[in-house]
Amino acid sequence: MNKEILVVGSAALDSVETIHGNITDAAGGSAIHFSMSASRFAPVSIVAVIGTDFPKEYIDLLHNHNVNTDGLITAPGNTFRWHGRYDKDFKAAETLSTCLNVFEGFSPKLTEKAKNCSSLFLANIDPDIQYDVLKQMRKPAITACDTMNYWIKLKNSSLKKLLKEVDILFINDEEARLFTGIYNVITAAKKLLEKGPSVIIVKRGDAGSLLVTENELIPFPAWPVEKVKDPTGAGDTFGGAFMGFITKEENWKEIKVLKKAMAYATVLSSFNVEDFSINRTCAVTENEVEERFNKYIKNLTV
Amino acid sequence: MNKEILVVGSAALDSVETIHGNITDAAGGSAIHFSMSASRFAPVSIVAVIGTDFPKEYIDLLHNHNVNTDGLITAPGNTFRWHGRYDKDFKAAETLSTCLNVFEGFSPKLTEKAKNCSSLFLANIDPDIQYDVLKQMRKPAITACDTMNYWIKLKNSSLKKLLKEVDILFINDEEARLFTGIYNVITAAKKLLEKGPSVIIVKRGDAGSLLVTENELIPFPAWPVEKVKDPTGAGDTFGGAFMGFITKEENWKEIKVLKKAMAYATVLSSFNVEDFSINRTCAVTENEVEERFNKYIKNLTV
Repeated sequence: MNKEILVVGSAALDSVETIHGNITDAAGGSAIHFSMSASRFAPVSIVAVIGTDFPKEYIDLLHNHNVNTDGLITAPGNTFRWHGRYDKDFKAAETLSTCLNVFEGFSPKLTEKAKNCSSLFLANIDPDIQYDVLKQMRKPAITACDTMNYWIKLKNSSLKKLLKEVDILFINDEEARLFTGIYNVITAAKKLLEKGPSVIIVKRGDAGSLLVTENELIPFPAWPVEKVKDPTGAGDTFGGAFMGFITKEENWKEIKVLKKAMAYATVLSSFNVEDFSINRTCAVTENEVEERFNKYIKNLTV
Repeated sequence: MNKEILVVGSAALDSVETIHGNITDAAGGSAIHFSMSASRFAPVSIVAVIGTDFPKEYIDLLHNHNVNTDGLITAPGNTFRWHGRYDKDFKAAETLSTCLNVFEGFSPKLTEKAKNCSSLFLANIDPDIQYDVLKQMRKPAITACDTMNYWIKLKNSSLKKLLKEVDILFINDEEARLFTGIYNVITAAKKLLEKGPSVIIVKRGDAGSLLVTENELIPFPAWPVEKVKDPTGAGDTFGGAFMGFITKEENWKEIKVLKKAMAYATVLSSFNVEDFSINRTCAVTENEVEERFNKYIKNLTV
């Protein structure tokens, strides 16, 4: 089996407004953010749908970052568009408009090569589609998914069915509360373990993240970013680095591997928020990543 | 100079309501919470005022924890009382009533022994009184203060005058924002460094804490507590452990000392919130503290 990650999710053109400026129709979507981060650590194949208006330069950018785009299908019509605005606290975005466009009929059919990937990341899409993709895979060594409040509310049983067969769940604190009905995020994360995944990762924005397994419960601080320009995609960038790092490891379930993956995930997502879209995640050098990673783990060493 | 901490602040009888229950007229106040935590690490002398109604059992508790109470003055009248309520998120308390009582005329006069303490912690009281106490000290090796939104708004210039002569400022995120007018807590903390202290410690509740010096900027995660019963005094318990730890160290300004102090502060405050009043902070054994401390720093080691 090839040590490679398959990511299935959205490719989008995002328009974002924050206190530090705005962008229009920039590269976005969960699969794009994930790919740009994960491909620093392991080969990535992306499965997503774009419209005929999706700029070629963004596809070139994926190629430049060694992302296999055989599964990036162009459909007649426009690319999925999202327009959102963040307040100064950069917490939940206010959605100003969403146009699903070609994303509406998204029904991924995996190629033989895709089916053989060792890692699968099911980004935040309809849990029925996530499940369908999971079932197309041969025998992935690592499976992970993300989700959101919309699916937790509207497709709860589909999501539960999916979770029974997934190794890792990425979720934010509000979603964990919504899913479990439990306010305390730690108790909520433990409850989520019972739903199937052996690893729960709770993303808490500038409050850091939480790694929860059967035996461990470890909080990680966020890397302190003074000027957050755009948090869009930070969660998928986090997931990308995490999945990228564990994919090439022999024993991904070892706590020392998971902890290192959390540290890289923290670092990559901290870069992501420093600029709009995927600008910073793409531009950051390997040296800059290593430097921040080393400083992060040095800071944590008491 | 004796390696001992002098703490000046409030002694109170707190009534608290949370989702996990309530207490009436329990031991509280900044100086009490601080003392119970700090005295685990170094000798503590408390300076505060109580009324004739302050239960002897609480004074016995201070003695049992080796807190010198020569500066705990009994004045005619009732003890300072606070009645507050926390919502399920355990963030800012809603104050239901405050009766200053004997605390109203609090004007501490230090004894010769008190003046010679090596460390001074000025808990959250009127900055003019904090300054007056600071000036009574002989030559303390470490000086620290806490404050609150009330003083930041009403006695801003007094607070600024005090900060010019204090080594360490303990402050929470909202207060740091209010004081500087800067939303980002990291930038706010850096700005506070310019006001005098060489160490700024930002307390962020369950989002952890931030240690900021001229050369370092280190975030610490909170210890994950599943059942917060009462967060009252967590900040002073944090400050107590921090000051207690650095007081007995040779070179308190070394980053490795400050980091270890942050870890102990995190651990002690996590115990504090597990029960009402000072119940858990008093009951926790040295073994339990060391066990949690060791687990905390092991968790952080990537």
